[in-house]
Formats: sequence, structure tokens, C-alpha cells
Amino acid sequence: MATVATRTGQEVDRTVLDSMLRRRMFYTPSFEIYGGVSGLYDYGPPGTALVANMTDLWRKHFVLEEDMLEVDTTMLTPHEILKTSGHVDKFADWMCKDPKTGEIFRADHLVEEVLEARLKGDKEARGQKVVVDEEKEAKKKKKSKGEKKAVKLDDALVKEYEETLAQIDNFDGPELEKLINKYDIRNPATDGPVLPPVAFNLMFQTSIGPSSNMPGYLRPETAQGQFLNFAKLLEFNQQSMPFASASIGKSFRNEISPRAGLLRVRWQEAPRFVEVKDIEMSLLDRNVQLSGSTKVTKMTIGQAVETGLVDNETLGYFLARIQLFLLKLGCDFTKLRFRQHMANEMAHYAADCWDAELQTSYGWIECVGCADRSAYDLTVHKNKTGAPLVVRETRSEPLRIEEFQIDLDKKKFGPRFKKDAKTVEAAIEALSQELREKLSLDLEKDGKIEVDVEGVGSGKVELEKDIITIEKRTRVENVREYTPNVIEPSFGIGRIMYSMIEHVYWSRAGDEARGVLSFPPAIAPTKVLLVPLSTNPAFKPLTQRLTSKLRRLGVSNRVDDSSASIGKRYARNDELGTPFGITVDFQSVKDNSFTLRDRDSTRQVRASEDEILQAVKSLADGDETWEDIAKRLPEFTGQEVD
Amino acid sequence: MATVATRTGQEVDRTVLDSMLRRRMFYTPSFEIYGGVSGLYDYGPPGTALVANMTDLWRKHFVLEEDMLEVDTTMLTPHEILKTSGHVDKFADWMCKDPKTGEIFRADHLVEEVLEARLKGDKEARGQKVVVDEEKEAKKKKKSKGEKKAVKLDDALVKEYEETLAQIDNFDGPELEKLINKYDIRNPATDGPVLPPVAFNLMFQTSIGPSSNMPGYLRPETAQGQFLNFAKLLEFNQQSMPFASASIGKSFRNEISPRAGLLRVRWQEAPRFVEVKDIEMSLLDRNVQLSGSTKVTKMTIGQAVETGLVDNETLGYFLARIQLFLLKLGCDFTKLRFRQHMANEMAHYAADCWDAELQTSYGWIECVGCADRSAYDLTVHKNKTGAPLVVRETRSEPLRIEEFQIDLDKKKFGPRFKKDAKTVEAAIEALSQELREKLSLDLEKDGKIEVDVEGVGSGKVELEKDIITIEKRTRVENVREYTPNVIEPSFGIGRIMYSMIEHVYWSRAGDEARGVLSFPPAIAPTKVLLVPLSTNPAFKPLTQRLTSKLRRLGVSNRVDDSSASIGKRYARNDELGTPFGITVDFQSVKDNSFTLRDRDSTRQVRASEDEILQAVKSLADGDETWEDIAKRLPEFTGQEVD
Repeated sequence: MATVATRTGQEVDRTVLDSMLRRRMFYTPSFEIYGGVSGLYDYGPPGTALVANMTDLWRKHFVLEEDMLEVDTTMLTPHEILKTSGHVDKFADWMCKDPKTGEIFRADHLVEEVLEARLKGDKEARGQKVVVDEEKEAKKKKKSKGEKKAVKLDDALVKEYEETLAQIDNFDGPELEKLINKYDIRNPATDGPVLPPVAFNLMFQTSIGPSSNMPGYLRPETAQGQFLNFAKLLEFNQQSMPFASASIGKSFRNEISPRAGLLRVRWQEAPRFVEVKDIEMSLLDRNVQLSGSTKVTKMTIGQAVETGLVDNETLGYFLARIQLFLLKLGCDFTKLRFRQHMANEMAHYAADCWDAELQTSYGWIECVGCADRSAYDLTVHKNKTGAPLVVRETRSEPLRIEEFQIDLDKKKFGPRFKKDAKTVEAAIEALSQELREKLSLDLEKDGKIEVDVEGVGSGKVELEKDIITIEKRTRVENVREYTPNVIEPSFGIGRIMYSMIEHVYWSRAGDEARGVLSFPPAIAPTKVLLVPLSTNPAFKPLTQRLTSKLRRLGVSNRVDDSSASIGKRYARNDELGTPFGITVDFQSVKDNSFTLRDRDSTRQVRASEDEILQAVKSLADGDETWEDIAKRLPEFTGQEVD
Repeated sequence: MATVATRTGQEVDRTVLDSMLRRRMFYTPSFEIYGGVSGLYDYGPPGTALVANMTDLWRKHFVLEEDMLEVDTTMLTPHEILKTSGHVDKFADWMCKDPKTGEIFRADHLVEEVLEARLKGDKEARGQKVVVDEEKEAKKKKKSKGEKKAVKLDDALVKEYEETLAQIDNFDGPELEKLINKYDIRNPATDGPVLPPVAFNLMFQTSIGPSSNMPGYLRPETAQGQFLNFAKLLEFNQQSMPFASASIGKSFRNEISPRAGLLRVRWQEAPRFVEVKDIEMSLLDRNVQLSGSTKVTKMTIGQAVETGLVDNETLGYFLARIQLFLLKLGCDFTKLRFRQHMANEMAHYAADCWDAELQTSYGWIECVGCADRSAYDLTVHKNKTGAPLVVRETRSEPLRIEEFQIDLDKKKFGPRFKKDAKTVEAAIEALSQELREKLSLDLEKDGKIEVDVEGVGSGKVELEKDIITIEKRTRVENVREYTPNVIEPSFGIGRIMYSMIEHVYWSRAGDEARGVLSFPPAIAPTKVLLVPLSTNPAFKPLTQRLTSKLRRLGVSNRVDDSSASIGKRYARNDELGTPFGITVDFQSVKDNSFTLRDRDSTRQVRASEDEILQAVKSLADGDETWEDIAKRLPEFTGQEVD
């Protein structure tokens, strides 16, 4: 387990956090009563609300803020489309099989795991402190035969391993095979050898149609549905460029994950780049990684674009907007970096790609990919179908082009070349401007020219002055037609959610460590907990009134009128990440005043019903912070409820 | 096409409506540039927003209003689970193949189509008015050889056809085969015969896992994920009964559709039934349909439960809540009915089922299913896995049960029956209370008894007083353990959306018929259109300020500053169903006042910026209606903008 500190400086204890998340039903293994299926999870009520709130924030931050065109395209995709897009041939991971146990490993992950284990053993042998993941160690003790612990390595080999790990994302199948042979990488559980890596396509196959006779796949990304609708979206946008479309939905790539994706047609200058240019970011470019290092460079995105570290303004604009989004969710700036893909790592459609990565106890997790897909997808679909996936713009000033134009005397040309006429004409049409210029001079000088035409006669054709004319003329172009470039940011909601949870998680000091999830109010599954002091029936009408008023204000709330102590009930809700609590006590029955508790500081204020409701609404909407409220309303110290 | 009138009394012209919906990109055929795939559609920007708003309303109406537990479970489901649930064997439609063309028909739809065509021909021959669907007719002319038009039928045969159609949902495969033979039903396009109906499973098959070796399906319903999590949800609800869970997501059943589903554990009395009992509903029960009629009964849901027409309060409560939801969306009460499933029509898991059906130009469309699944699913999963999918309740007063208990002297019993001991003991344990009472008397009288034990000796076993004792004793039960019954309402969002669109669609009278979609503000894709009078740059800062203020108020809006006339721009937005419009004119530049237009009445009011913004917010949130606003703010009649 990588060592990652929480906000209070303690380490993240993943075993404790994980058991808390399952106990509170943020998520739970799917089909658990049937033994479960590795990698498939269900979201329980708090997890579902958290994802819904994150998605809502995403929609506001990206779609509404910039008037993007949101679409919802079908999940089933016929074979032909993903063949054209390159996914059938190239959307694959390199996998190794252990022929004895049948286990299957992702080749790069296997190399990484074994080399990291050896480096750890080396550190131990050298007497350095090693952070141990007890759960993992316990599992290893049970089944691992292969990796010996505490074996000292040569200094040179340690350096080699470290440099290999820094570049691990850059190796393709044959290179991974070399590493496996060179370092004798084996199945860590059994010490058995593994077969050479094989490309394994990540898409789920299925059949479409009433007779199931059309082969297809579950979509591996939400982008294709947007590319295919390009012409209609451009029309919907009243033919105006640039524009962006967005899609929220599930993608299926050997893991099924809720994703949200954008496509933005690229423009020379991003009109709103100026709004973000001073934002400081941590960047890790491909050259640094290739040199065997993972040291980030800190600079503003304005500088990064200016120096060419980030290729263009549109890409830079989205990297900055992605960072702002992740910080809104509660992610920790010091655990966020943007890493550029290395050449071999990039998807087949990408010309450039930067990942937003969040640091967790699993290491750095790739959470948002921001790919520059250039004109790749629109071009392949256009070439395959002939559909006009292009922009046609009337030029404000017509373009005047000086060029050599060729005219043929068709009356003589046809009878002369007969069945070869078309081939000869195509060869002449294809002549470059340079060649045309030279030929026009030849024609003037000799009265005839020779043109190469493959497959006709001797491969050369003679043309005389009476059959061909070559002249310099001016052509006027009123319309510009082009295939636009596309930037595609793609968000893995599940990964962002898990990483963000590690960032907002901490333990409150006390007799026993008590977990707290400090979600920002905007994404907290429930905004307010209503806690009557006891089960006394006098409190019931008050909590009912509060709950219905809060519902009308659009503030999600829950009542906990169980008989547990107030402290226990608040502890339970700190685990659920509920940012605020309202206590209903005997004073409330008398004078209709209530206390309001802040989850993070456990401080309380007391005020009238209207004031408390207004404060909660303002906090939930993000109009005020707890500090603002604490300044406005009188502090309350009557009860101990933390 | 069925004849359905819009609110202005005109007929719904589906060809016109459909082309408008595609032109405005509510939806569009998926993969159209690749030729499209029948039945797959993408939602464009207005369609996506409409579905999102409908889903949001659904969540408020059902989940938040009743504190349901919302979950989000995985879409991939292993074979074993759907085998246990009965879907692998029974989730099928009866399909017929035309062996010559390879076309595949749903058998009931084929019978329906052919009989309806013959009835239409009969009406024509009798000189009655027949409403003609021109698009359909045009297609038929091209390919139909089989169905002759205008053939008069025997009066008795007409009656037979009509009665068959009223019961069409009740026929199974063999019965459909009989109908096909009896009435000589053929492929309408070619007049070729079709093969007998075959059960065709509706689920999409795929493989799960890195080596794709686990067979599975895309979930055919969202309910299974909720059933499998039953024990955890009960725990999350602090073991308190009853409760409801909810799930929003896609289901895959030979069509992929966004669905929202609930599960509610049934209770003797529905606590909130009293709130809905006076709601009037149109009910079509199974007995009426079996008698060959489709005449609905109008009564309150309270009466329906009281008379037993609707089986229980929980079911009745949800039928009423479903009706309230559909009316909130803008559905027309006169085009809504609840139809009870007939015995053969019900899904294998259902004990009873009512569908909310909406009337459209396609006929009555089943949009919401409300199934009483009793304890079926929880029982089959419990039996298969042994997981305790039950409720355990401490009885407030222990239950005392008088019963005949049997004791065996194991020391003598084992040696006596040897390898048969277990079988004999099981047979004795299974004896009913009645038999035990009789045997206890026999034992007292004769000193021995005879018990039937299949497969042991002669099939009868003799037991003496010294080996068996039968006594009446009192057993005390402190805990009640039971498998609860479940009501499952399931909403097909896409079907509801289409049907609702037909209900809110009408044409404005004028030189040319102009389409209007009268969405209620809550679900309209965009709430306000901002229209500057012209492209004069003086208007730009005002529209920009309005748009950013509206965004902060959470009111979705769009600017149309194209050079089209104001009337044209409003007409475009009537087609998009935008309920309100703000005009920015020269008066606005002078005194910061604006006009606000109502889509349905085209009436306008004029007031200050603050008043207009407040009115729009209030209209969008549903706090006020246009009538309220028109009373408060001065009418404006300056411009003609309808």
C-alpha cells in the first residue's frame, strides 16, 4: 500500500476505510449471495446519491456553464462501426496467462507488482523502513511461494528496476515479453512461469436484432455516438463553430463504469482560455518519464501552453477546467497531477493525451483522460460511409488561388484513348502543380508532352497541343471545407469517486478512531441529519415539520430517531459524510429554536427555526460557508455531541 | 393509425409530428450514416434534457417523497442468477419466422396486424369511413401482395375477430399457432406462410471476466439487483419494515430502454393509502377482457380495493401514485387507463399485474407495469443460495402454539432401521398435525402404529410405544420469520416520453399549421428562450446579463440571436416546447423592462428585470401558473410575436 496521509497527518488505513464504506453501503459486491463476481459492484443508497450529485455538479460545471449539447446515444454498437473506428483491431490490453492455474494477468501490472516487491525486499534487507500492507501480506503468506522477502539487490539492478517502473506505461507486448524473460517474472502466487503476452480485446461482444444475427459490442466509450452524430449536432448548433457535445452514461470495457465524456471541436484559440491561464498545475510530461523520473513540473497553464509543454489552448483550457472540477469535488490539490501519455501508451486514435491522476493508497490512479483526437475519428467514418462529416464555411473574403489548370479536348480525347480514357484522365487530374508548370513549358516548347500513366501501353502517353491545354488561371473559393480537430475529455466517475473519498477521509481523535468523510455540501449524499434528543413523542411534530420544510427547500435530509445516544448518531452520520445536523431538544419544543452542528469542526450554533433553515439552505447551495454562519449566529455549547 | 385527437380537436398527424421530432433532434436513428439499426435511437439535446427532467421528477415524486432507498446495481448478470429467477427459461416472446424471407414477427403482433387489416377492409367494403395512415399505406402499396383491401366479411366473423383482438394478450404459443392456421395468417408483405411460433428469449447474452469464460446476460430488468441486496437494504433501513427501494437505469430486453423501477415490500395496510383513496381511475380488469370487451370501469381507487377489483391497498396506492405522476408529466387523463393482465399474459414471477396504458396513434401503449411479485423472487434466491432473505421480527407478545410433538428413542431407532433410519425419521417428521393426533390415539389404544414410508420395506413401517412418543405440548415462538411480499412498479421512460409527447402536441391555427409541444415547465428541456428584437449590438449585454442571472437561479435558458424574425424564432421554440420567452427590445435598453411570453396562450406581460426574473423562477419551479402571473403583471400587446 502506498503511504498517503489524510488531512490530520495520519496514514489512510485502507482496510478500515473499506470496511466502513461497505458497512455504510456506499458500495457492495454485486451478486454477493451467489459468491460475487470479481470487479462488479453495486452502489447502495449513499453511493448512488453521491454519484448522482457528482454527475449533477459535472453537468453544471461543463455542460451548462458552456452551453454544450448533451446527447444520450445507444449502448449497443454494430461491429462495422467499431471496426472502422479501430477499436476491434486495437482496443486491447496485453495479457499473460499462467498455463498451470489458468490465471490471467495484465502484463504491465504483473511486471510492476513483481519488481516493486523485489525493491521492497531490497529495502528491508538494507534495513530501511518499509510500509507494510498487512492485508496484502497476510494473503501473500498464505499463497506466495515465489517472491522471497528481504533479498538485497545490486545497486545497478535497483536503478534499472526503478527506471523500468517509471516507463512501465510505455512498453508494448513484445517489450513486456523481453522484460518478463530478462527479469524472470513469474506468477507471484505459485512461482510458475507465464506465457508470452497476448493482445486481449477489452470490448464485450453481443448480438443485436430479433434473430440475434448482427454482431456487435457494448460501447467501449461514449465518444463514438457523438462522432457519428457530428453532422446533426453541427446543424442543431445552426452550423456555427466551434461547439462541444457531452454525454453521460455507462461504458463497457471489461469493467463497466459510469462515465461522462465531452467532445469539443478544437479552435485556433480557445475563447475562454484567458479565464484559466493563471491556474497553477502539476504537470508530468512524457520526456521526464522517458528519462526514468516521475518528478512533476509546477507552472501555470498559461506558461505550459506558451512553452509548448501543453500543445494548444483548447487542450490547456480543458486541463484547467478538469482541475477546477476535481477540486470542487473535494480532491486534494497536493494529490493531483497531470501526466502526459508516452508514445506507445496512447490509444490508437490519440495524437496527444494527458491524464488527470489522483494519488491514493493504490498509487496514482488515472481518473480523467484528456485526448487530442485530431481529425482521426471524423475522417475514418467519413471515408467509410461517404457522409459529409465536415464543416463548410462561407469565407468572409473569397480565397483567390493562382493555379495551373488543364483542359482536354474531349471530342478528340475519347476516340484516341477509348477504354483507357478514364485512366489517362485520372492520371492527368492527379498531376501536381509543380509538374503542371514544367509540362506547360514543355508543351509550349515542343508542341507535345509525355505523361506517366501506369497500366496503359508502355506506361507513358503522348499528348499534343490540340488535345491538351495547360494554363495559369485564378480560381475563386467562396466556401472553406474542412474536417475539424476534436479534444475529448473523458471522466471515469467510479475512479474519481473512490479517489476523492480517500482524499476527504480522516479519523477524529478520541477514545476510538472515528471515521469522517468530509464531502463538500454540494456532493454529500444527504445534506442534513435531523436528530431528536430522545425518543420523546414531543419531538415528533417538530422533526416532521422540519423535514417537510427542508424538502420544499430542495435540501435532502434524513431523520435519525433511533434510541442510540446523540453522539453515536452523529458518529454514524460522520461516516456517511452528512455535513450538517439539526438537534431537536426540549428548548425547541418551548421556543422553536434549534441547534445546527458542523460535521468537520463539531461546533454548533443556535437560532430560530427560520434562521436555521435559511442557514442550512445557504450552506447546501454553497452560498455561505460554516465560517460565515458561525459569525452570524450565536454559538451553542450546551451539549456534547461530537 | 388509430384516431387520436389533440387538445384542439384535430387528429394527431404522426408523419408531421415524427418529422418535427427528428428535425428538432429530440431523437434520431442511431448509426444513421451506417444505414441505421432498426429499433435503436439516440437522444439529441432536447430529448436528453427531457428524459433527465422526467427522471428528476420521478425521483422527487417517488424516491424523495417516500424516503425510498435508491440503489444502482450492475448491468451484467451471471447466468446462474437469471436461471434461478426464471428468466433464462421463461422470459420469452412467441416469434414466427417466414422461412422464405427470413423475416421474424412477434406472433401476437402478426395476428393483430392481419386481423385489424381485414376488419378495416370490411369497413371500407361496407362504405364506412376509414382513417388511413398514408405512410403505412404507401409502404404497403410497394410491398404488400397478401392483404386485399375492401373485402366484406361475414357478420359472425367480424364479431369473432373483434373478440379475438380483445383477448390477444392472453394467447400462448400453441393458441397463437391455432389462430394462425384457423384464420390463414400470412406474412402481410409477401403473402407467404409463416412457421409455427417459437419461444425466443429476449435477453442479450454476453461473457464476463478477463478470459470471457463466464456466461451472462445484460439485465432484463432492474429488479433482480434489488432482490439480491434485500438483506443489506433491510439492514440499512435499521431492520425496520416495510420499506421500498428504487433504481434508475437501462434494461436490456431485445430493446434497450431507460427504465426506472421500484420494489416495495408489501404491508397489510398501506399507511398512506388514505391520501389517495378518492382518486378516480379508469380500470380495465381481466374478466372484462376475457368477455371480449375493452370497456373501462370508472371508480375511485378506494372503491376498487374495497370491492376486490384491485387486490390490496399497497397495489392500489401505487396505481394511484403512478396516475398522479403521469398527469404531472402532462399526460391526458382521458387517454390513460389501467389494464389488468390476463392469466396467460403475466410474467412468470407475477401473481397479479396492472399496466398503466397511454392512448396514442399506435393504439394503447403499455408504459408502466405494476406487478405483485408476492414472495416469488426472494424465495427462489433464498432456496438456491441459502441466504436469509427473510425478515425476523421479535413478537411484541410471544406466540404460543399447541401442537402434537413426536419424540423417538434414538438408541433403539438407529439399530432397528440402520441405513433406512434417516428416511424413516424424515417421513415421521413430515406427518401433519391431523395425522399425529389420530396416531397418538392409535398408539395409546394398540401400543403400536403404522406409518407410510416410501421406499423402505413394503412401504409401511411399524413403530411400538417404547420407540415413539406422541404428545400434545405448547411451543413458544418469540420471533416471527417470514419472506415478505413485494410490489414492483416499473416505468419505461422512453415509451412514457413518446406517449406524453403525443398528448401535449397540437397545431396552432394560422396560415400554416405550426406545431406546439405544451410540456409542463417542470419537464420542458429549456425553460426560457431569450430573444433580442434584432441583431443590434445594443442588446448583447442585456441578454448576457439575463442568461447569467437565470443560470444562477437554476433556470435553464437559451439565447436565439439569429437574424430570423421574432415570430419565426418563437415558432421554432414552440416546436421545442420552451414554455416561456423573454424579448429584449429598445425599451429594455432604455428602462431595463422586458416582455415575458407564454407559449400556450402567446400572451405577454411587461415588467422590470427583477420582476420578470422572479416570475420566470416561480413559473419554472411550479410555484405559480401563467394565470397567476398574468393577474400580477401588466399585459403587453405591443408586438405581434406568435
